[in-house]
Amino acid sequence: MTKPYVLGVDIGGTNTVFGIVDARGHVVASSSIKTKKHTNFDDYIDELHTEVTRLLEANDAEDKIQGIGIGAPNANYYTGEIVNPPNLPWGPIIPLAEKVSKAFNGIPVAVTNDANAAALGEMTYGAARGMKDFIMITLGTGVGSGIVVNGQMVYGHDGNAGELGHLVVKRNNGRICGCGRTGCLEAYCSATGVARTAREFLEIRTEPSLLRNIEIDSITSKDVYDAALAGDKLAKEIFDYTGRILGEALADMCAFSSPQAIVLFGGLAKSGELLMKPLKEAFERSLFPIYRGKTKIILSELKESDAAVLGASALGWEAKYHYEAPNRPVGAENLA
Amino acid sequence: MTKPYVLGVDIGGTNTVFGIVDARGHVVASSSIKTKKHTNFDDYIDELHTEVTRLLEANDAEDKIQGIGIGAPNANYYTGEIVNPPNLPWGPIIPLAEKVSKAFNGIPVAVTNDANAAALGEMTYGAARGMKDFIMITLGTGVGSGIVVNGQMVYGHDGNAGELGHLVVKRNNGRICGCGRTGCLEAYCSATGVARTAREFLEIRTEPSLLRNIEIDSITSKDVYDAALAGDKLAKEIFDYTGRILGEALADMCAFSSPQAIVLFGGLAKSGELLMKPLKEAFERSLFPIYRGKTKIILSELKESDAAVLGASALGWEAKYHYEAPNRPVGAENLA
Repeated sequence: MTKPYVLGVDIGGTNTVFGIVDARGHVVASSSIKTKKHTNFDDYIDELHTEVTRLLEANDAEDKIQGIGIGAPNANYYTGEIVNPPNLPWGPIIPLAEKVSKAFNGIPVAVTNDANAAALGEMTYGAARGMKDFIMITLGTGVGSGIVVNGQMVYGHDGNAGELGHLVVKRNNGRICGCGRTGCLEAYCSATGVARTAREFLEIRTEPSLLRNIEIDSITSKDVYDAALAGDKLAKEIFDYTGRILGEALADMCAFSSPQAIVLFGGLAKSGELLMKPLKEAFERSLFPIYRGKTKIILSELKESDAAVLGASALGWEAKYHYEAPNRPVGAENLA
Repeated sequence: MTKPYVLGVDIGGTNTVFGIVDARGHVVASSSIKTKKHTNFDDYIDELHTEVTRLLEANDAEDKIQGIGIGAPNANYYTGEIVNPPNLPWGPIIPLAEKVSKAFNGIPVAVTNDANAAALGEMTYGAARGMKDFIMITLGTGVGSGIVVNGQMVYGHDGNAGELGHLVVKRNNGRICGCGRTGCLEAYCSATGVARTAREFLEIRTEPSLLRNIEIDSITSKDVYDAALAGDKLAKEIFDYTGRILGEALADMCAFSSPQAIVLFGGLAKSGELLMKPLKEAFERSLFPIYRGKTKIILSELKESDAAVLGASALGWEAKYHYEAPNRPVGAENLA
């Protein structure tokens, strides 16, 4: 018998946000804890369990959770582990699904990375409802992606598929990327990439710009956006440059899975026509002829504050990982 | 009740080859007709039907065909049509599945493009047996691809997914490609691409080479291979250049679907270490760190003469398109 709710958990570098979600994608209630308060993972799990239980009790939902879906950086759907997370304090391999399922008395748990969770959320509750083939691109500090083919998440043979932020868009003299290589999409089309472009343009060019009023090392993509909105020519050119590179990369992605839509999410995606106009022009111009005019570039339809929890929760409905305590007979949890 | 055989049909620009194939991938018997003998498609279908029937009768297989699988350039799995084929005389939209199913009294038919058929053949009978996630790359006159994710062919929302020969590998001053754009993988790493590289190198460089004994416009990739085998330094550099570009492109493909293997097929794939050494070096060097050391680059295990028919036949087992003549009650074909 399916229970009426799932629990969605989004583990970010700063906050862990969790919410009770119903089948229609309504966040019934949510709360959060600080991700890095405990350097010991078991202590973190204890606090998460305590606070989630408090939320469940307050909403009379203790026995109504079908499954728990968790989005976390570098979380692997197949193994249930977080592997080498760049921004979490609990070591190189964290047995996330096992520990959470154990803490919650065997409730099924599924985990995946944050961009895949975003794609699942969009497919279940957002702009990609009803689509069987689409690509989700998250434009944040980095560039993440989640790919859906035939209505299924693409995890690859090892659970690590969908790192389209690390497609190489510049083969020679490309920017150094956080991954250690050069020329990755993420080094150009993330929020930090836009700030890097601003610094490059300001150093190479001589024309006046509102951006010259800001200390160069502290310029953010938001500063570039504000300057462009105020009519600053150089700032607009930074968006043209970013949109062109992103549009060309999205066109290459179509040659892979010919998606019905590419869904953009994140701060940069909210730059409106400043980004979308050069992006769509470059996209259509760069497409292999049979794809032209077919794939829509659209924006996420999920509220940014809810999106991470909703995305993670969507995974809760299909969660299967079920921790069985060694000394407890199978099914015993149903006797409680 | 499943019947013991399928019919595989490969429609090429010159020959249409067809064979009776059993469940273990044994080609029981095969034959062929000339593809372009008839400019009228119905006449072509008539001859195909006649010759296939002759083959079936000679092998006592008239009532033993479960389905017909057809590989053809630009054939669309969803619609059953060939659309704008570059090399066939029957017009822009050819209702291939319908006409074949009709001619064969309602036997289920499925069609797909030749590279997808190759991938299905490799998955069913060849180097990718047992794999759920792999990418097939065909290195012929052009560069084709077939992608398998979660054990399923990736067709995309419109049936046109998997054109990885048209990933852009050179953004600026790239070679003109047959598709009308510039910088496509196919313009560098196909047999014709290798010949183009040879001409470029011979014009730009001044050092001696065995290739200078050949009229420059008639140089083929086979000539480059023979010269490299004979120790020619320039010819080896042409393979280094080709392998590097292909290796870098294959690394980008991993960021999409994290395949267990990439299977190479076609004339160029048989160049041995001349191609594979620079290819594998560039591949491992270019991979996003989490993918390193995981994805194998392997060669097709199907005999080249059988591969096209086997690949097409693999589709026959899952064929569902079933033409019902308007005046025949459903199921009437079973009364015959």
